[in-house]
Amino acid sequence: MKTDIEIAQNSQLSPITEIAAKIGIEPDDLELYGKYKAKLSFDKIQAAQANKPGKLILVTAINPTPAGEGKSTMSIGLADALNKIGKQTMIALREPSLGPVMGIKGGAAGGGYAQVLPMEDINLHFTGDMHAITTANNALAALIDNHLHQGNSLNIDQRRIIWKRVVDLNDRALRHVTVGLGSPVNGIPREDGFDITVASEIMAILCLATDLANLKKRLSNIVIGYRFDRTPVYVKDLKVEGALTLILKDAIKPNLVQTIYGTPTLVHGGPFANIAHGCNSVLATSTALRLADYTVTEAGFGADLGAEKFLDIKVPNLPVAPDAVVVVATLRALKMHGGVPKAELSQENIPALRAGFANLKRHIDNVKRFGLPAVVAINEFVTDTEAEIAALKELCQSIDVPVELASVWADGADGGVALAKTLVNVVENGNSNEYQRLYDDQDSLETKATRIVQEIYGGRSVVFAPKAKNQLKEFAKNGWDKLPICMAKTQYSFSDNPTLLGAPTDFDITIREFVPKTGAGFIVALTGDVMTMPGLPKEPAALNMDVAEDGSAIGLF
Amino acid sequence: MKTDIEIAQNSQLSPITEIAAKIGIEPDDLELYGKYKAKLSFDKIQAAQANKPGKLILVTAINPTPAGEGKSTMSIGLADALNKIGKQTMIALREPSLGPVMGIKGGAAGGGYAQVLPMEDINLHFTGDMHAITTANNALAALIDNHLHQGNSLNIDQRRIIWKRVVDLNDRALRHVTVGLGSPVNGIPREDGFDITVASEIMAILCLATDLANLKKRLSNIVIGYRFDRTPVYVKDLKVEGALTLILKDAIKPNLVQTIYGTPTLVHGGPFANIAHGCNSVLATSTALRLADYTVTEAGFGADLGAEKFLDIKVPNLPVAPDAVVVVATLRALKMHGGVPKAELSQENIPALRAGFANLKRHIDNVKRFGLPAVVAINEFVTDTEAEIAALKELCQSIDVPVELASVWADGADGGVALAKTLVNVVENGNSNEYQRLYDDQDSLETKATRIVQEIYGGRSVVFAPKAKNQLKEFAKNGWDKLPICMAKTQYSFSDNPTLLGAPTDFDITIREFVPKTGAGFIVALTGDVMTMPGLPKEPAALNMDVAEDGSAIGLF
Repeated sequence: MKTDIEIAQNSQLSPITEIAAKIGIEPDDLELYGKYKAKLSFDKIQAAQANKPGKLILVTAINPTPAGEGKSTMSIGLADALNKIGKQTMIALREPSLGPVMGIKGGAAGGGYAQVLPMEDINLHFTGDMHAITTANNALAALIDNHLHQGNSLNIDQRRIIWKRVVDLNDRALRHVTVGLGSPVNGIPREDGFDITVASEIMAILCLATDLANLKKRLSNIVIGYRFDRTPVYVKDLKVEGALTLILKDAIKPNLVQTIYGTPTLVHGGPFANIAHGCNSVLATSTALRLADYTVTEAGFGADLGAEKFLDIKVPNLPVAPDAVVVVATLRALKMHGGVPKAELSQENIPALRAGFANLKRHIDNVKRFGLPAVVAINEFVTDTEAEIAALKELCQSIDVPVELASVWADGADGGVALAKTLVNVVENGNSNEYQRLYDDQDSLETKATRIVQEIYGGRSVVFAPKAKNQLKEFAKNGWDKLPICMAKTQYSFSDNPTLLGAPTDFDITIREFVPKTGAGFIVALTGDVMTMPGLPKEPAALNMDVAEDGSAIGLF
Repeated sequence: MKTDIEIAQNSQLSPITEIAAKIGIEPDDLELYGKYKAKLSFDKIQAAQANKPGKLILVTAINPTPAGEGKSTMSIGLADALNKIGKQTMIALREPSLGPVMGIKGGAAGGGYAQVLPMEDINLHFTGDMHAITTANNALAALIDNHLHQGNSLNIDQRRIIWKRVVDLNDRALRHVTVGLGSPVNGIPREDGFDITVASEIMAILCLATDLANLKKRLSNIVIGYRFDRTPVYVKDLKVEGALTLILKDAIKPNLVQTIYGTPTLVHGGPFANIAHGCNSVLATSTALRLADYTVTEAGFGADLGAEKFLDIKVPNLPVAPDAVVVVATLRALKMHGGVPKAELSQENIPALRAGFANLKRHIDNVKRFGLPAVVAINEFVTDTEAEIAALKELCQSIDVPVELASVWADGADGGVALAKTLVNVVENGNSNEYQRLYDDQDSLETKATRIVQEIYGGRSVVFAPKAKNQLKEFAKNGWDKLPICMAKTQYSFSDNPTLLGAPTDFDITIREFVPKTGAGFIVALTGDVMTMPGLPKEPAALNMDVAEDGSAIGLF
């Protein structure tokens, strides 16, 4: 069996100018990065806004398990299949971080015959967006520490600076550091820490900005810390939003690449799905909507986190809401949700499958609660049995949700045709979607959090820890309480306990702290520990990497 | 008077494919980064090696003063003038770091009508080389700390790790930090620090590597620290040289851009000229030599540091030595070397000029000591008087060195024609160069350092501090004593005292410590304090930066 990189390296790529021509983009509207990658020009992005938006398909999933569910692979294969059946389709995906690439084997550009190419570049430096975000983030940090060092005219309390530095690497030793040591010429000593780049608020901002002016406005609204009198200090107080915008002026332009089947794909932005909203950029998604009849996009983690944030945080910045939501599941993952340990997943187990279906069902119910039609995609795995597949189909039919088996990993576009046809039928012949957000911006932060926990997670109530309670008052005073909530919760369970699989009930969710992301435009609610800087494993993937004599990558998945 | 950025933004650029065509490069041999930047393909770089190398011109300068000397501007203007008089010429220059760009006003892509374009891109992310170097450097750091955390099977002494992290920013608060704090899951606590990216050994390696295999070999030879038994630990012990090479596989390819006059220019690599050798990449210079009849390149700081390192460290990796060396001086700077304070430089002062000429003369003598012909370029300034110019010309003629006034900043190519003609006369009608290195690799480190101090700096002797003395024994034991010496000394004086201008004598140089750069392939000798992480000024340039509505840069010089 070929590895992902072997399949990728054996694929014949078209020049990106030819891919662009499929969606009416002239060579002059592209900023090429080699032969197979390009950024779209501002002129083209603006001109496209005059077009009527096409159909939007959101791909989401059940709660992830170690068995995997293959959301990106399904998004790519579905789009290839839509093109195959004659629907002009684009994809809008997140771009991967280099940190996990060096750490754990496993690509972030799909897999098998449902891949985005050139995967080597996409998984390494790509067009430099991550580096630009790292630089903007760290330039701000340097400017803050310089402000302290040069007299601190803003009276910033060095103990209450919340802006951290970032690297696009897994580097646990940087989680907690002290800076400014050694001598008075080295600045003001203080405790600090580094996050991974995708956890930077600037990543979230880049992904929610609707244009360059909006990017600058959001950057200016970042809270970097507090004064000694506890009032917030914004980037605009430091007057450096112009410089940060300058550093990001190319990174904000969506990147065009292609799938193995030549489907035009915008890969742009990749914020965390816990402390951020976990979706690719608004500019990429809305530009794809203006250029194609169908746009397939995805949201991070399971639908409780990814889809909820897509629908409550991202959609208000898009021209349209999704026309349908595809919920991806595997039989193996559902059996895990039904209580089967990982080692026994290869054995047929229909009772466990039925039990685990509760997880899928709650996600489907949630999609319907947002007023949107759901379609279930079963991502085929070699150990699936016919009886299991039949059982899952029957379960889906019992709650009146369309379901299709898809084998895009093994069969590419052909493996997604049935799913594509079912989806088109839902979108074009079903009831029109009646999207409604879960909450109003005018609701209090307590109300927003409570509605998410009760109506999406299926929990009982929200417990606000003492710190969070104090913050509710403080945030209202600062005028931050009209922002959406961004829940930082484990992706493995509807609850805040990662071991509670399936569809748990009667649980409370404790919010221990809020974090203002006023530049991005949401308030993060922290439940449990959230990892914003991963570590490397004992045998990092880096140990197997190399470059062949012809300059091609070795050991990259 | 127009600013540099105004001149740049008003210049009509040719598509980089047209610039490439001038030197016989087909579009297929380019990896485009937008319309005006491209990397050369490995295939083209390799194919070019079959060509006979052209003439090499090294541009260097007197010891820099706050009055400025304009070495990059002169290099660019000279090359434009060489093309104007019919010599097919390329330029090979260093690429700038983003750190100083955010800090201090002043471009690093020439000035006035002698600029490399697109200067906005070159001064920001360019083609991502700096970011790739930052990433490779920090990936190695993360892998080292991970090795400690995961059991430390190599027995690395965490107190003796010499590999530091980097950011491509001026950030004094990162000079001295502690990492690994907070809890046992955050790694091993230890003291650490960050340098600016251009100070990374990986930058020096990228600039000395002759191909991808040589890059990997040099990376594998980096010393990252010492075991508890004091034996050195190399990158090859960690087995991550393949991954680091992979991260750098595109960064090693030279970047093609153009001057205002359309001269093809390779801008690639930019190591420090104190703790590294301060020259653009070997691959860029040697590729330019194979593609053009004349190649103009430069070396950092004054000739005592830049040219000495170019000739002793870089040239052994090039196909040819320089055919001539241009020493740039300004009357203002010579007057400073002659004792005039900065505020009085606009007044004519021929006695001071005569006194300051001693600095220029010693640099010329040094060039001759290397067996190479020197040409003096006077970089014209508006306050220069005719009497001063005549005096300097006479002084140069008295020691039999050709001299020309050049006004490339104000007049572009036209302002360099006289210099270009004189230079061509020296190169094509003079005695052939008889290049000889200052020392043999087989000489001891003491001998190499002593020869540099006595024969280039004009000093009396070298004092080895106790630590340096111990290191001489240790380095010999490790087999590092056959490497060239890379002096880290103040650029402002021939001595290690920055206030000793002119041509001081009877001084000793104290080497307080050696630093092994066994990957780059040299041993750094530290004299005095060397700054490897600059700080930001009270009013950073970032405060004036912005982006115009059309996406163009504002406030970038």
